[in-house]
Amino acid sequence: MTFITFLSDYGPGDEYVGVVHGVIASIAPDARIIDLGHGVPPQDVRTGARRLARALPFVPAGVHLAVVDPGVGGERRAVALRAGGRWLVGPDNGLLIDAAERFGAARAFDVGASPWRLEPVSATFHGRDIFAPVAAHLALGEEPSEEFDPATLVRLEPVAPSEGAAIVLEVDSFGNLRLDAPAGATPTRVNDHAVVNARTFGDVEPGALLLYTASDGTLALAVNGGSAAALLGVRAGDEIRIT
Amino acid sequence: MTFITFLSDYGPGDEYVGVVHGVIASIAPDARIIDLGHGVPPQDVRTGARRLARALPFVPAGVHLAVVDPGVGGERRAVALRAGGRWLVGPDNGLLIDAAERFGAARAFDVGASPWRLEPVSATFHGRDIFAPVAAHLALGEEPSEEFDPATLVRLEPVAPSEGAAIVLEVDSFGNLRLDAPAGATPTRVNDHAVVNARTFGDVEPGALLLYTASDGTLALAVNGGSAAALLGVRAGDEIRIT
Amino acid sequence: MTFITFLSDYGPGDEYVGVVHGVIASIAPDARIIDLGHGVPPQDVRTGARRLARALPFVPAGVHLAVVDPGVGGERRAVALRAGGRWLVGPDNGLLIDAAERFGAARAFDVGASPWRLEPVSATFHGRDIFAPVAAHLALGEEPSEEFDPATLVRLEPVAPSEGAAIVLEVDSFGNLRLDAPAGATPTRVNDHAVVNARTFGDVEPGALLLYTASDGTLALAVNGGSAAALLGVRAGDEIRIT
Repeated sequence: MTFITFLSDYGPGDEYVGVVHGVIASIAPDARIIDLGHGVPPQDVRTGARRLARALPFVPAGVHLAVVDPGVGGERRAVALRAGGRWLVGPDNGLLIDAAERFGAARAFDVGASPWRLEPVSATFHGRDIFAPVAAHLALGEEPSEEFDPATLVRLEPVAPSEGAAIVLEVDSFGNLRLDAPAGATPTRVNDHAVVNARTFGDVEPGALLLYTASDGTLALAVNGGSAAALLGVRAGDEIRIT
Repeated sequence: MTFITFLSDYGPGDEYVGVVHGVIASIAPDARIIDLGHGVPPQDVRTGARRLARALPFVPAGVHLAVVDPGVGGERRAVALRAGGRWLVGPDNGLLIDAAERFGAARAFDVGASPWRLEPVSATFHGRDIFAPVAAHLALGEEPSEEFDPATLVRLEPVAPSEGAAIVLEVDSFGNLRLDAPAGATPTRVNDHAVVNARTFGDVEPGALLLYTASDGTLALAVNGGSAAALLGVRAGDEIRIT
Repeated sequence: MTFITFLSDYGPGDEYVGVVHGVIASIAPDARIIDLGHGVPPQDVRTGARRLARALPFVPAGVHLAVVDPGVGGERRAVALRAGGRWLVGPDNGLLIDAAERFGAARAFDVGASPWRLEPVSATFHGRDIFAPVAAHLALGEEPSEEFDPATLVRLEPVAPSEGAAIVLEVDSFGNLRLDAPAGATPTRVNDHAVVNARTFGDVEPGALLLYTASDGTLALAVNGGSAAALLGVRAGDEIRIT
């Protein structure tokens, strides 16, 4: 059994995700596809990279396709990375490399001119025309040829919050907030709200704000039985004051 | 072929659903997973329980995973219920029992300390760390050991509408409303709107409000070619006057 | 391996999609289901028809189930169309025929009274009670019997934009707009905004509006790094002035 995982910003409602599944199934009908969510905010490469890195340790080794690709059709490379027995496939814009290096040093291949592409290749849907067929052929055990120096892979610049502040990295569907805050911080206030340092939601009163360590080891804010995003009136990218 | 079904309030966009799929696939790669929707309103155990009970009669017998779990990481038990040759897995908060008992009396097992758990167990993502591996091992035909008296399972208190009123239990993506109204009611008005008792949408004029028996036998309101939720300006949990 | 694809307006969150999967799996457990998106705007047959026609050339031949069905339970026929070795299953309201004819002339079968239906057939959920079991039995290689003249199939009336205008056919999750505009048009303004004729998003400045040929060959508008729908303040069905 070969598994292909797939994460994108295509949204859960349109036909794009299904078309990618269809292209894969046409080439590698026995591969099993696991969707890792397609609700990455449009073109938000950082959020896609974090979700991919969080998810991959929990899925079977295989081919890991990820597409958040504001530079589609332009100069950015299309790549396949090999790390720890896994293949990661997607654009060379920082989306893949953090997740790949969790499994060891990566080898890198340029697949932008792969013979596996669907012709004619469109300028705006490389998920369908390049990445899906490449992922499917890798799942069949085939090898890409255009290897290059992985030191040239694009990496995301770290973003540092201001002093005394944290950045809201993500808001999930519960309204829980993932923070870019120093581990071990034990603030008592977030903006104008009291916050309790706790282990899980039910450790605080209903409606109370808690700071906790999320399941991937990062700091997070939640409201027991409610939405921290709504309480604080914030969204991804906002800074909050923690004191 | 073993089927695992999966319903939750994780939302369709984040990576949580895919991570649960990945954990299951890592343990039971041949099991087939059928998603029964992940758009239960956050932490709304009642809606999750109704959807699970409505869906299970139409899916193959197997392992039925459901996670709507505001008490995650706290005192609530994590359980597996055995009924009519099916396994139901999730939190002991009333989510599972109505669905289970449609298939006969249930046996109950506490899986909160199961040796199948992923270590370290997080405080906030038991779908990944407890429920998914338990579901996967049950799909492999293994048995849990910590049986307890099912009479102690948590059950949801019934909610009764006021006299002359009905509660809007759910709003689906069409804006159709499921009601907690007495079967056989034949009202002529809902709030300030005339309503027609009808069999299906096209039996009334475009834009007209109809009361009908939904596909699971409960009463429902819809607008032909429109949204009853928008027309009435109501959402789940609201009471409406029916006269 | 038999593939069944499935497109609908059921929304990604409710249990309806999963129930259809469950019914299919109960009858044809070895069939693989590929979802082609369930976010068609409620009851928008035209958008469903376009998405189905765009997607099918990229998925393996098999059984293609599509349900956007405002006339459910009424007089409209339930049909299975045979074209180019594929089966298309759904309501006879124009949803299927354009996609079918891409694969050749279609034969048509009325499946509304099929012996494969789930009894009792509800008045409002034919996806579950008629279309899913029909799709599953076709996937098993069985044949329907009630053939009729495909010339009597319902077809959608073409909609023509006003002179100097284009209709926004669809808005995807990126805010990109698909237009019903004459191919080869090279306008310089859309409403009050300058537009650049370009090949892909990155060919224009960030925030600039571009007109491009989408991956299915139709004309489309986008904003590099943004949302054309938000910039223009339009939604599906609106007309825009192109000059």
